[in-house]
Amino acid sequence: MDQPQFMLYTYDTPNGVKVSSYLEELKDVYGLTYEFHCMNLLAHEQKSDWFLKLNPNGRVPVLVDRKSKANKREEYIVFESAAILLYLAENYDTLYRYHFEDPALRSDSLQWIFFSHGGVGPIQGQAHHFVRYAPVDIPYAKKRYLDETKRLYGVLNTRLEGREFLVGEGKGKYSIADMNCVPWVRCWEWAGVDSMLPFPNVVAWMQRIEARPAFQRGADVPFHSELPKNEQEAKEKIEMNQIWQGLK
Amino acid sequence: MDQPQFMLYTYDTPNGVKVSSYLEELKDVYGLTYEFHCMNLLAHEQKSDWFLKLNPNGRVPVLVDRKSKANKREEYIVFESAAILLYLAENYDTLYRYHFEDPALRSDSLQWIFFSHGGVGPIQGQAHHFVRYAPVDIPYAKKRYLDETKRLYGVLNTRLEGREFLVGEGKGKYSIADMNCVPWVRCWEWAGVDSMLPFPNVVAWMQRIEARPAFQRGADVPFHSELPKNEQEAKEKIEMNQIWQGLK
Repeated sequence: MDQPQFMLYTYDTPNGVKVSSYLEELKDVYGLTYEFHCMNLLAHEQKSDWFLKLNPNGRVPVLVDRKSKANKREEYIVFESAAILLYLAENYDTLYRYHFEDPALRSDSLQWIFFSHGGVGPIQGQAHHFVRYAPVDIPYAKKRYLDETKRLYGVLNTRLEGREFLVGEGKGKYSIADMNCVPWVRCWEWAGVDSMLPFPNVVAWMQRIEARPAFQRGADVPFHSELPKNEQEAKEKIEMNQIWQGLK
Repeated sequence: MDQPQFMLYTYDTPNGVKVSSYLEELKDVYGLTYEFHCMNLLAHEQKSDWFLKLNPNGRVPVLVDRKSKANKREEYIVFESAAILLYLAENYDTLYRYHFEDPALRSDSLQWIFFSHGGVGPIQGQAHHFVRYAPVDIPYAKKRYLDETKRLYGVLNTRLEGREFLVGEGKGKYSIADMNCVPWVRCWEWAGVDSMLPFPNVVAWMQRIEARPAFQRGADVPFHSELPKNEQEAKEKIEMNQIWQGLK
């Protein structure tokens, strides 16, 4: 039997889920196939020589396209989660099911993709760090990143007033703009956000996306994970993250 | 006389310079015209009702295209610096002078654009904050963001080994991938990076770009600025930034 077309190097992180949830949608619509490799972050596999050849930044996810249309059927490697979404959209989502042909909607989509990629992701990532992983307690930094995360959620909440998805005519269409954002927002509790009550449109949007079978499957790549159920589980999760982030 | 086609809402920030430096290149090649509005950040103009209608995130830069090709000649508004670069490239840079037609090079370009947009920009921005603007001295945070900024410069330095620009065949071509990154890197000294000696390829790349007349003109939009020459000037710059960032 043929190898799957794509190999996804990933881990149980928001950026990984962005890509696996799109690959699952593309499997349903176009029959595209992929397999994945669960990176051994504890062994710092993401900083190993072989992986740095795939992504010089040493981060997951990375997608290898084994018969790339973009590169005349040779293998082609893509890093940066949002760049992978756009690569898949532009080369394989030929019916525009999850992106936009119209140039104005296409730019709308890019604007929200960059909003997430330069804002929600990195800022909420800092909240995760100072709330969960930092070996020292720094109230100033916790407050800084939680306040900014909530401000960004507020921007999303306003955008989603009367809309089902971030981009598209009318109430919008589920697209890579949503995929590039929701995997971060759904980690709000782990990030230390105390309540989502101020962001009802964001909650409805998140639930709408989490109800999609393809999203559910994608969120379980490379494995199913849940919020820690008790202090011991939380402690283990924190220790593991501290190790792969080089914090201890 | 006709109004210029584009109105750029900007300030003297790396994200603003990304766009003005591209608009200056496009002026030279295609005769495209623009004017700019220097935002009054001290008066928090970026959080005013009229500006939030342009960018719900309340950040510069924003580009208004007064006769948009993408939107059937109606006015069209673009926020997020990298989304503006892509909007200009895809709608106006029809000769592919500063972007790429080939799908593989196009994805290479997007990968480096997202690398900068999710890494160099937000991380170096945090270094600026903790080194210059934070009202408290937090050595842990300073070290965290300076270390990560230097790690990212190291990734760029490796990429630029034997290359003149980040993306393109052979030694590469000056493109929006470079424009999305260099305006941040050239602020290395203000960010608190002690030396660029470990990154000779990055220094050569930066000098190559800074030598371009269009880049020089773009970097002076909305006004010419230099590193503070003494402690008093540094203090004034810090205070001004603290005010518009809502830190005092």
